[in-house]
Amino acid sequence: MKIRLKVISLIVLVQLLLVSFAAAESRKDLNFPDILDYKTLKCDLHIHTVFSDGLVWPTVRVEEAWRDGLDVISITDHIEYHPHEQDIPTKHNRPYEIAAGMAKEKNILLIKGAEITRDTPPGHFNAIFLTDMNALDTNDFLDAVKIANEQGAFVFWNHPGWKPEAKGWLDIHTKLYENKWIQGIEAVNGDTYYEDAHRWAVEKNLTIVGNSDIHDPMSEGISSNVDHRPVTLVFAKAKSPEALKEALLEGRTTVWHGKQLIGREKYLDAIFKASVKAAKPYYRYKDTVWFEVKNTLCIDIQLEKTGGAGPEKLTLPANSTTLLKTKVKDDAEEVKLSYTVKNFLIAPDKGLAIELIIQLQ
Amino acid sequence: MKIRLKVISLIVLVQLLLVSFAAAESRKDLNFPDILDYKTLKCDLHIHTVFSDGLVWPTVRVEEAWRDGLDVISITDHIEYHPHEQDIPTKHNRPYEIAAGMAKEKNILLIKGAEITRDTPPGHFNAIFLTDMNALDTNDFLDAVKIANEQGAFVFWNHPGWKPEAKGWLDIHTKLYENKWIQGIEAVNGDTYYEDAHRWAVEKNLTIVGNSDIHDPMSEGISSNVDHRPVTLVFAKAKSPEALKEALLEGRTTVWHGKQLIGREKYLDAIFKASVKAAKPYYRYKDTVWFEVKNTLCIDIQLEKTGGAGPEKLTLPANSTTLLKTKVKDDAEEVKLSYTVKNFLIAPDKGLAIELIIQLQ
Amino acid sequence: MKIRLKVISLIVLVQLLLVSFAAAESRKDLNFPDILDYKTLKCDLHIHTVFSDGLVWPTVRVEEAWRDGLDVISITDHIEYHPHEQDIPTKHNRPYEIAAGMAKEKNILLIKGAEITRDTPPGHFNAIFLTDMNALDTNDFLDAVKIANEQGAFVFWNHPGWKPEAKGWLDIHTKLYENKWIQGIEAVNGDTYYEDAHRWAVEKNLTIVGNSDIHDPMSEGISSNVDHRPVTLVFAKAKSPEALKEALLEGRTTVWHGKQLIGREKYLDAIFKASVKAAKPYYRYKDTVWFEVKNTLCIDIQLEKTGGAGPEKLTLPANSTTLLKTKVKDDAEEVKLSYTVKNFLIAPDKGLAIELIIQLQ
Amino acid sequence: MKIRLKVISLIVLVQLLLVSFAAAESRKDLNFPDILDYKTLKCDLHIHTVFSDGLVWPTVRVEEAWRDGLDVISITDHIEYHPHEQDIPTKHNRPYEIAAGMAKEKNILLIKGAEITRDTPPGHFNAIFLTDMNALDTNDFLDAVKIANEQGAFVFWNHPGWKPEAKGWLDIHTKLYENKWIQGIEAVNGDTYYEDAHRWAVEKNLTIVGNSDIHDPMSEGISSNVDHRPVTLVFAKAKSPEALKEALLEGRTTVWHGKQLIGREKYLDAIFKASVKAAKPYYRYKDTVWFEVKNTLCIDIQLEKTGGAGPEKLTLPANSTTLLKTKVKDDAEEVKLSYTVKNFLIAPDKGLAIELIIQLQ
Repeated sequence: MKIRLKVISLIVLVQLLLVSFAAAESRKDLNFPDILDYKTLKCDLHIHTVFSDGLVWPTVRVEEAWRDGLDVISITDHIEYHPHEQDIPTKHNRPYEIAAGMAKEKNILLIKGAEITRDTPPGHFNAIFLTDMNALDTNDFLDAVKIANEQGAFVFWNHPGWKPEAKGWLDIHTKLYENKWIQGIEAVNGDTYYEDAHRWAVEKNLTIVGNSDIHDPMSEGISSNVDHRPVTLVFAKAKSPEALKEALLEGRTTVWHGKQLIGREKYLDAIFKASVKAAKPYYRYKDTVWFEVKNTLCIDIQLEKTGGAGPEKLTLPANSTTLLKTKVKDDAEEVKLSYTVKNFLIAPDKGLAIELIIQLQ
Repeated sequence: MKIRLKVISLIVLVQLLLVSFAAAESRKDLNFPDILDYKTLKCDLHIHTVFSDGLVWPTVRVEEAWRDGLDVISITDHIEYHPHEQDIPTKHNRPYEIAAGMAKEKNILLIKGAEITRDTPPGHFNAIFLTDMNALDTNDFLDAVKIANEQGAFVFWNHPGWKPEAKGWLDIHTKLYENKWIQGIEAVNGDTYYEDAHRWAVEKNLTIVGNSDIHDPMSEGISSNVDHRPVTLVFAKAKSPEALKEALLEGRTTVWHGKQLIGREKYLDAIFKASVKAAKPYYRYKDTVWFEVKNTLCIDIQLEKTGGAGPEKLTLPANSTTLLKTKVKDDAEEVKLSYTVKNFLIAPDKGLAIELIIQLQ
Repeated sequence: MKIRLKVISLIVLVQLLLVSFAAAESRKDLNFPDILDYKTLKCDLHIHTVFSDGLVWPTVRVEEAWRDGLDVISITDHIEYHPHEQDIPTKHNRPYEIAAGMAKEKNILLIKGAEITRDTPPGHFNAIFLTDMNALDTNDFLDAVKIANEQGAFVFWNHPGWKPEAKGWLDIHTKLYENKWIQGIEAVNGDTYYEDAHRWAVEKNLTIVGNSDIHDPMSEGISSNVDHRPVTLVFAKAKSPEALKEALLEGRTTVWHGKQLIGREKYLDAIFKASVKAAKPYYRYKDTVWFEVKNTLCIDIQLEKTGGAGPEKLTLPANSTTLLKTKVKDDAEEVKLSYTVKNFLIAPDKGLAIELIIQLQ
Repeated sequence: MKIRLKVISLIVLVQLLLVSFAAAESRKDLNFPDILDYKTLKCDLHIHTVFSDGLVWPTVRVEEAWRDGLDVISITDHIEYHPHEQDIPTKHNRPYEIAAGMAKEKNILLIKGAEITRDTPPGHFNAIFLTDMNALDTNDFLDAVKIANEQGAFVFWNHPGWKPEAKGWLDIHTKLYENKWIQGIEAVNGDTYYEDAHRWAVEKNLTIVGNSDIHDPMSEGISSNVDHRPVTLVFAKAKSPEALKEALLEGRTTVWHGKQLIGREKYLDAIFKASVKAAKPYYRYKDTVWFEVKNTLCIDIQLEKTGGAGPEKLTLPANSTTLLKTKVKDDAEEVKLSYTVKNFLIAPDKGLAIELIIQLQ
């Protein structure tokens, strides 16, 4: 049995070798502010591994999440679809079990999840906060969704509209909705924004989420026209599974997709106010004042004028200070700049309305 | 059986979804020139997947190789070490089988390989051009190496010296060498250059190779102090398994590691001559001439003066033109600049000697 | 007079100090191919210095040109406009004289030039290949243009249309044109493409040029939406003032602007053919073949399908190899892919038509 | 006089044209924290223009300062050295006058200054907060320094040691020092750190400054081995000339050079404490705790262990969070990590000693 002993000692050696390749343990944080006394959790709730049709080992998803600045992920391998089955026998709970240890060490909150993957319609649905993924492996679609709900899951409709021949919101979706078996919907999946899904979220008060649905290694799988994975910002009372679920059920989310934020007016407004500050003018010459506007958010803010003062279009770049000037009346106490934030969407094609007030005295 | 049919149709759908995430099908080529009438093949001959202790699916290794500008890879999962065995039953030939189809589509030459992973000493050895990896799963180390050779393999010693307590070139290595059971040695593995291995290669006329030994997704696994995976340049008569093997057995290689090339004088000299051109002076004023030197290689060339003319130190950046001036005698027909290429190593700490001739007439 | 001697010795010292800040003497070349047996000269023929309303010393323009990969520049300070006159007395020939020495050392062909800057209309005109810029300092606009022509100048209309209230091609322009006093027109100035100017160039057979009109230091003055200064490619028999002038008078030019080339069909077609190569298929499976297309040009090539085979839209990135596949008939000897190059403009909104032939046997 | 009127209207037009090239009005701020109840002003106090031997117009220096995140600059053209005199008659106060308007609009505090440039020794000296630069144009060196002091200037010795044959601290320097005619010294000039100057600053309690001494356009003039111009951080009671001078005379400065900070222990310690925060552990397993350390400074912090706990070497990258783990005793209330900050120099080769305290309960 000499060989066996040798092999055991090899485990240590090979791990030593791995260390020299280990990803750096430092990351740039994503600077989305905490708002309204909530903690802003950065989440990706739709992720695959080799245990369904993904191409990486579960621990890689934790490494990637840490590096990308996230707080929370859920690995949601398909219940029904296993192209690697010949090599990896199906075990629905294994991805979570394998990733859990590294998640603790990396301070990533790992949420149990699965994707219920039936033909479209009805389409694909993610269920997270599950207790046992195996129970969802049923013949009947509605049974699977019902069982997920009985386990206390938060269930959302994935990429509604990704299938060209998909037929929109059907009776089956109404049934799920009326039974309160779905609570959320992906307005964003991968590099695609689903306008219909966004509209349904607004109309039906569903929680808006946006996720990567990544199958490749993350750095291969993000298309160059978005530049980062989609992230669901969840405004939670704490960084815990319970607080996350409460926030998701209450709809306290915003999605970061490409150069846009997509969410309810209340939260986008709070993010804007926490991120953009206009200072008192530093210089006045005759009826013109010069002043600084700081944007501490990690994304550019694109403004279009709706009021009288200020430039027609204005970009406040991420983490930057912008110089502006405007004319003022002799006795004015303040100047008000009225704008729409073109890339903060409170509904399809509808930007957030804001005002920048410049105190003059 | 309705569910089965649905699941089959899902295969198409999920693959459609994957397309939207597919890595771009364009790559920057690695501009190493063909030399001495050989084709310069860019190779990584030491790579892992989930089938041993790696973290990605075999097809990912083909995608990464294509993106990184390679022509050839060998997946060399450990014969003896399988930390994922609980989830992925050991099958030594599967990584090759799974990756083979994509390799054809991506124009990557995929070579069958395996890593014989015994305790150190003797250390780890890669065998490539195998016909059946299963046959190497033996109790005795020497048997495994012998069987590999009987299959016609090219066998090389991996990362000699990575284990701090490793004791160098021992009797067991002499035995392998005298039996002609090893033909090559890794002077570079991952981000590490093994000076001893390089010296042994020079002394014993072993083929020098350098490989990534990657376990992570490639973009996570390359340390920031090397910036690219190590690549073995093989100067072959054609892009085929036979021609590759012939070239490896003949020692026609050079390793690209960090900002260095490591190889035999003959090949480094040919690469230099194919890459660097000095033009006739474009301007003369009194006894000074100004002239251009072009470097079309994809790496910076670092020169240190050994002769009389030219600057003490000189960097010719990759893919760039450099302006130089020098004094000349009235009736000179040429100027000769004698330098050592500090980052073209023909032996540990020994750079390639070169001359740049500037024609004056 | 001790102080004077000291100051003289300081000249040496301060120049020594400058050396430590000197720009690196290496540059990336711009890889536009030579075509049709001509040498492709990269030119910027509209540049300002502190001697009119620019903000840098003339030698800086030579340094910038070298760094940007150019072969030729002309400094064209305004004859009539001198906002720095209080500090720098007007001397029209000084910018050339000051920059000439460095131009020789940097292998930049420096062409004498000036900008005739009258109110719009008629607008601004550059005259290059002048012998004495002072002679253009006349009261009458037409006199200035006439004198430039008598000096053998190549004269072109600058940024036609930059002034919102400009009224297009007027009688005065017809007069210049009929007298053969203007030979060229800027289709591009700074970051702006002038569609009207391009159309006039095509209709009236004027030479198309595109220039930076830079006033700031170059690295401050290039707007982020173009990423590089505009460059006029001139297809000349040699790198000499005479050959350059002959080529400009014959209309052998193309303008590189943003991600576009703008020029006559003949030259764009030759650039395409010199840059893009489709290889024989490397793999065939049933009726599908896989093949590589290389683009060695320094800009992405954007294709839109006009024929039957190939993808609808296709980008061939700069200096890259792209993998493609297509269906073929059993006995076909070749496949022909017909495309329009969307970013090679032979007229406003009209791309170059090309064919890619894939040899199958 | 028609032509004159036309030319005047041209001023407006050409300025309109310039607008389209104007540098963006947004900048990334330099995130050095305010400390010890002072405002941290970022300053470059040694800058040249075309009015001595620089190569840009004075307003360019204001644009560059704004873009680089600065609060304060002083243009300090040579009193004695004017290589452009043939074209630009010497007027010592003009650079300030020309730049002053733009400085107000860009919120840059512009300080009057000049460089007294005598042969070495004694060397070059900058005088800032002058009232009339003309008065320094004297025959005798000591007179010039005396007059600067009488105008209330802050005087510092520039690049001591840049001249190879310079002979160090001589009687003439002692005389200046004893007369209290010099108050500061450049420990950094351009890309060079002067170790002797740093030592003299520590020994003699001179104010440490570091400046660009830029002659080229800034983006050409910064060598690639430093990556940014040197910046003098001044800890002032306000952003005003008076507060700046008070802080400089009191020695409240730190220099940012390459990847280093150079300054007095008190200020480097305050910067460290304002920038680095270690949080309570987020995970404990047996006797190991995992915790985060955030570095909000804009530069990497390089640590080397001096105490028992923590890794030997540790980099806290700029604007990043780093994960660490350490062993703890069962009943410990805190863990103390003792390190030297290798790139915070309180004397030549002497890093700042710091402690990171991790609260466990």
